[in-house]
Amino acid sequence: MTQFRLTPLAKSLPATVPFVGPETQERAMGRPFAARLGANESVFGPSPAARKAIAETGHWMYGDAESLELREALAALNGTAKENILVGEGIDGLLGYLCRLFVAPGDAVVTSDGAYPTFNYHVAGFGGELHRVPFKEDREDPAALFAKAAEVDAKLVYLSNPDNPMGSWHEGADLAAAMEALPARTLLVLDEAYIELAPEGTALPLSFDDPRVIRMRTFSKAYGLAGARVGYALGHPELITAFHKVRNHFGMNRAAQAGALAALQDHDWLARVQAQVAEARERIGEIAWDNGLVALPSAANFVAVDCGGDGALAKALLDRLFDRGIFVRMPFVAPQNRCIRISCGTPEMLDLLASALPGALEEARRG
Amino acid sequence: MTQFRLTPLAKSLPATVPFVGPETQERAMGRPFAARLGANESVFGPSPAARKAIAETGHWMYGDAESLELREALAALNGTAKENILVGEGIDGLLGYLCRLFVAPGDAVVTSDGAYPTFNYHVAGFGGELHRVPFKEDREDPAALFAKAAEVDAKLVYLSNPDNPMGSWHEGADLAAAMEALPARTLLVLDEAYIELAPEGTALPLSFDDPRVIRMRTFSKAYGLAGARVGYALGHPELITAFHKVRNHFGMNRAAQAGALAALQDHDWLARVQAQVAEARERIGEIAWDNGLVALPSAANFVAVDCGGDGALAKALLDRLFDRGIFVRMPFVAPQNRCIRISCGTPEMLDLLASALPGALEEARRG
Repeated sequence: MTQFRLTPLAKSLPATVPFVGPETQERAMGRPFAARLGANESVFGPSPAARKAIAETGHWMYGDAESLELREALAALNGTAKENILVGEGIDGLLGYLCRLFVAPGDAVVTSDGAYPTFNYHVAGFGGELHRVPFKEDREDPAALFAKAAEVDAKLVYLSNPDNPMGSWHEGADLAAAMEALPARTLLVLDEAYIELAPEGTALPLSFDDPRVIRMRTFSKAYGLAGARVGYALGHPELITAFHKVRNHFGMNRAAQAGALAALQDHDWLARVQAQVAEARERIGEIAWDNGLVALPSAANFVAVDCGGDGALAKALLDRLFDRGIFVRMPFVAPQNRCIRISCGTPEMLDLLASALPGALEEARRG
Repeated sequence: MTQFRLTPLAKSLPATVPFVGPETQERAMGRPFAARLGANESVFGPSPAARKAIAETGHWMYGDAESLELREALAALNGTAKENILVGEGIDGLLGYLCRLFVAPGDAVVTSDGAYPTFNYHVAGFGGELHRVPFKEDREDPAALFAKAAEVDAKLVYLSNPDNPMGSWHEGADLAAAMEALPARTLLVLDEAYIELAPEGTALPLSFDDPRVIRMRTFSKAYGLAGARVGYALGHPELITAFHKVRNHFGMNRAAQAGALAALQDHDWLARVQAQVAEARERIGEIAWDNGLVALPSAANFVAVDCGGDGALAKALLDRLFDRGIFVRMPFVAPQNRCIRISCGTPEMLDLLASALPGALEEARRG
């Protein structure tokens, strides 16, 4: 890369990808997956109203730079003002803007070891120094995160609730209480991507005007629109306004804006997906049980299944499931990497999993 | 913004927008535009095959992080390898990544005075110092741009061909010859957004492996998919690879990937749009002529019309057209701001323009 005059920071970065996509894996295998259960997408799909809105959009027009209609609908849903809301290109895009706003080379940021790799990618991409604390009993550990933030004077601390990759969660009230230990100089980045699938009371019960926290939500999970790339941030109006300094103002796909708006208004579909996810979580638990494995409780659209060994065993099982056309993923670090992470599938997909698991497990154990 | 710990650079930036979108203007007026002719969108729309592909996409799945099928099709079309191609979230998104890779605070960048504001926004957003050279006879001036780049040791020099907002162009061979004066330490950012609408021979006739230049193309103009946000960069494989350091790997809308691929394969539709654009350019020329105004030659899907006065007159005409429901834009700087810029409309839209223009012009001249 020597002939191009990249910035010193850009020169120092690897050309990498936070994780490998299923299409890339399918091409490497030479055939498609039979069950796509690794990316925590919603196999139940988006509301038919969202599909219709996307299909009927005037694709020739740029999207509304303000995403105003969608923001107004989100404001009504969340009982707040549109000034508290920014719509962006998925949570990934919003995390990128946030890091760009806050993180300069050497700035400290805190997250959990094994938490969302795309956040880490953005922090590294702006030269931030990432400090990690371990999970505690398979849950993110707010007290440890905030203590570490105080210790390193972190600008940002990332926490997802419900958490990925374990599916565990904290009650919102407990999190609010824990925030008393959040340093005054640290902004909490609360990723609530799975919030619509979590038990009542999981959302943080604080005003969206609270300047200590910015919340991230998405249409990629419960709303079934991962391909559309629509996320939103909820936070203090001054913080929301800061995004206008750097964001790609005309970056939103117009059909995605329309699809998200329609999805938001189809309450029945959301309720149906919530029920389907709950059923699928149960079913994954049964499949695990039938194979002598333990499914962890989950408040998300996936389940972490403890394979009863170490990371090598889980990785072997992952690979043997791949061989059988089943796409799943697994946590990156010990001891959580004793698990594989299975997205909530349709009954048919979970039948495939149920058929494949015994043989895959036997082979994985044989080594 | 004092309570948030933004980076010094972010603190210094204004919360701004490169330009105001038509929806924002419509809301300010309290009614929609009757003719949307200001954003150089393709009113002729995308190929029906693209609409179908978008509608039929599985929106629940994230897009392919490699955009491989689309890149392979683009490679075939351009007679190059997929390694020379990066697909991204519109040219706007790609310019943002490019600036992030190259521009650190204080780095020099060169563009034409009055050229694409979103490029300037990204340069400023990474702390770059923008140097501007004037247009020459309503065209971008490669010799002056490259001389300025040498003078200030620019990392990037931006040039669009065909040019926006004037619609003027250089023959590709002339541009290649002018590049002999491009400093060895400067990368040429060649924005070819309108290339499919320009005369044969406008595209730069150099290998995509040439490390001196990166080219930007889009599906927003001739392909009629502005709302989909799909652009691509063509350049040296090492330069293309550098984008993987910073880009949002899973940022592409899956339906947009499918729509762009289908649009690319519908050669008849493209030919039809090219003919429609050519007719509309003629028609805008006639309408201008009928009103005693001069339409400048254009190689794009818009026409700059010289209003025969200064910037104040053009602005007054723009406002009077707004009053009549006609959305157009105008160049930002003198002497180009003597013009208004009118996108190629359908015959019906241009009928509206023809009806509105005499009265608007009379009022504008009255002041």
